[in-house]
Amino acid sequence: MYRWPTVNYKEEGMREGMQIEDSQISIDDKVELLDALSETGLKQIVVGSFVSPKWTPQMERIDEIVTRFTPKPGVTYTALALNSRGVERAKAYSPPLTIERDQFPRLGVHMCDVFVRRNTNRSQAQEMERWPQVVAQAQELNIKEAGIGTNASWGSNFLGEFPVDDLMTMLERQHSMWDEVGIKVASASMGDPMSHCTPAKVEESVYRVKEKWPEINNIRLHLHNGRNMAIASAYAAMRVLGPEDTLDIDGTIGGYGGCPYCGNGRATGMAPSEDILHMMEDMGIETGVDIDKLIECVWMAEKVMGRELYGHVSKAGPRPKSVSSLYNIDMPFVETLEQAKHFKVGPSAYEGGIYPYREPITSEYRDRVDQGKPAYDPAGGEWPWKQDWFPAKD
Amino acid sequence: MYRWPTVNYKEEGMREGMQIEDSQISIDDKVELLDALSETGLKQIVVGSFVSPKWTPQMERIDEIVTRFTPKPGVTYTALALNSRGVERAKAYSPPLTIERDQFPRLGVHMCDVFVRRNTNRSQAQEMERWPQVVAQAQELNIKEAGIGTNASWGSNFLGEFPVDDLMTMLERQHSMWDEVGIKVASASMGDPMSHCTPAKVEESVYRVKEKWPEINNIRLHLHNGRNMAIASAYAAMRVLGPEDTLDIDGTIGGYGGCPYCGNGRATGMAPSEDILHMMEDMGIETGVDIDKLIECVWMAEKVMGRELYGHVSKAGPRPKSVSSLYNIDMPFVETLEQAKHFKVGPSAYEGGIYPYREPITSEYRDRVDQGKPAYDPAGGEWPWKQDWFPAKD
Repeated sequence: MYRWPTVNYKEEGMREGMQIEDSQISIDDKVELLDALSETGLKQIVVGSFVSPKWTPQMERIDEIVTRFTPKPGVTYTALALNSRGVERAKAYSPPLTIERDQFPRLGVHMCDVFVRRNTNRSQAQEMERWPQVVAQAQELNIKEAGIGTNASWGSNFLGEFPVDDLMTMLERQHSMWDEVGIKVASASMGDPMSHCTPAKVEESVYRVKEKWPEINNIRLHLHNGRNMAIASAYAAMRVLGPEDTLDIDGTIGGYGGCPYCGNGRATGMAPSEDILHMMEDMGIETGVDIDKLIECVWMAEKVMGRELYGHVSKAGPRPKSVSSLYNIDMPFVETLEQAKHFKVGPSAYEGGIYPYREPITSEYRDRVDQGKPAYDPAGGEWPWKQDWFPAKD
Repeated sequence: MYRWPTVNYKEEGMREGMQIEDSQISIDDKVELLDALSETGLKQIVVGSFVSPKWTPQMERIDEIVTRFTPKPGVTYTALALNSRGVERAKAYSPPLTIERDQFPRLGVHMCDVFVRRNTNRSQAQEMERWPQVVAQAQELNIKEAGIGTNASWGSNFLGEFPVDDLMTMLERQHSMWDEVGIKVASASMGDPMSHCTPAKVEESVYRVKEKWPEINNIRLHLHNGRNMAIASAYAAMRVLGPEDTLDIDGTIGGYGGCPYCGNGRATGMAPSEDILHMMEDMGIETGVDIDKLIECVWMAEKVMGRELYGHVSKAGPRPKSVSSLYNIDMPFVETLEQAKHFKVGPSAYEGGIYPYREPITSEYRDRVDQGKPAYDPAGGEWPWKQDWFPAKD
């Protein structure tokens, strides 16, 4: 019914995830997890951040991680740096790191003056003061396409909700500065560090951006999940984009992560990568990611963290589609999360479970599916009402 | 931008939730939780099920619960019964129970012959064999409006994915049986016991139902959440319905629940009520539910179950909107889930957290908001570029 945008997915678990976890997690564990992530088919992985170890001790030994991990050809590895000192530190490891330069020179601003002060020790005014300089530099370099963007786009834990009108006003202001110097705006970025996204607001925002500026064909969303709205919001954005558009979107395996400045800590989270990528798979959006391998990474991360993470596909397993992945139709009760792991560990997981049937379960449908035929076959006449037993024949 | 349907929300935690939990949870705890749910503003609460205690020992003492709980005027309490014996048992407690009769005589069928056999000891053929009888009875009673419906609508753990075309064929067949006797179809129900819903498929299904039969203005969705798609799917359905439509939708506090027959057990879940109702609140859909009180119920349920449930709003708190609920802008680090509970338990939750600032955080924006003004004020000229410091003035 719909045609979807191209989606570029960035795995943030090693950065957004690890930065809010125990700083004592071993480098061995982190390197093992990063190497496992590299084998899943993910194309963009953030390995961590080069920030002050004083306030982010979780990233104190980032140098060891980038030295010891095994880069996989074809995967882009980046690291977050919030200032020039961080960028310099990261450059020492490039390659294997790619020093992330925004493809577009971008005007950006936090809608929330409080969060930007808490998180980066700058005011919103200081962010805006840089705008003319960004524009001037782009002119000097003869740049053809630029970007606009907001962070804390839909609301803040410290200031409350921002109506989409306010977001649009902020983007319009940035857009007009590019217009004045004749540089085309091709990208709009909307961040959400405090989990104020909702599908209705994200859909409205992306729709209005596209409606006002159809030439913007790159949308970037960094959505947090403290109110469980990240997946629905991502879907809502995909809904109003088309195949001519590219959506850059981020998440973390298991959905863990957050920052200590936003006020929600580990309750913040992001869209669980395994869940949102499995959704995209169903929609026919190319991801290149092997969900089973990604689930192995989630289980590995849960072992390291010593607790269950937030994702669901890692607990229930993917929707079985291939014949070989279909469940045993005569399986006993599956009740606990341990028993539910049969999708990966096999029948031993539910062995000894309650078996309530007098006779084994059988079904002609499954027989058909096992033979490689579809359950329902419009062409082959397998619809129930074409069979003898059906009470109200054509 | 959009106008939404009326939504009727049904809380299933006492039934879908409890049926997969420890059968030893005390009746005292269950009654206390049910009574707390009654105080939240929820309008429809399922209290449990009248089923065989042999296979569902969790519901063995349902009689005690319905005897001891305190019915709240204005709340409709129902119980699940899968056969006439169950209905008879439930009738003994009506009132306070409302014996659930579908508002519409309904033709219904499981798309998955295996699941219906496992769950109800009937085949799909047996479900369909009842169709002519349902139609005849509706004719006798001179019924004006009827329903159609599927369960396991989008796929099955035992048979794989069902294309939306198959679902539509099944609904069309039912619709034509009502057409033949001149009874209008006003309602379509789609269930999903095995968590195969995805927003794209749910949106397509609801869209096609409405497109084909615009006179269907009641849609019912019972979505499970084993692959974390229930909220996005519900949003996708709301997206293609309008104010002339009613959406009946179910979920559970904390998002717990499932059945032992589907193969996912406790990994199944439903949309967490607190998360989906908070979403609806943001969309301007009337729910009548006090999210704070609902969160108290989730915390109560987590205490009873001895573990964290799946919902998010209960961990991060609702998006603060009122001035009194905004976070302290000078709060220290919030890292753990315990610290994150400050939204309900107050500043003691984060007391002793790391404080990284040399000087207290201040912001003119917060000053404005504290005075009851909006953060941005298009009318009042509070946009940053209208102020003296802004570097690129109009």
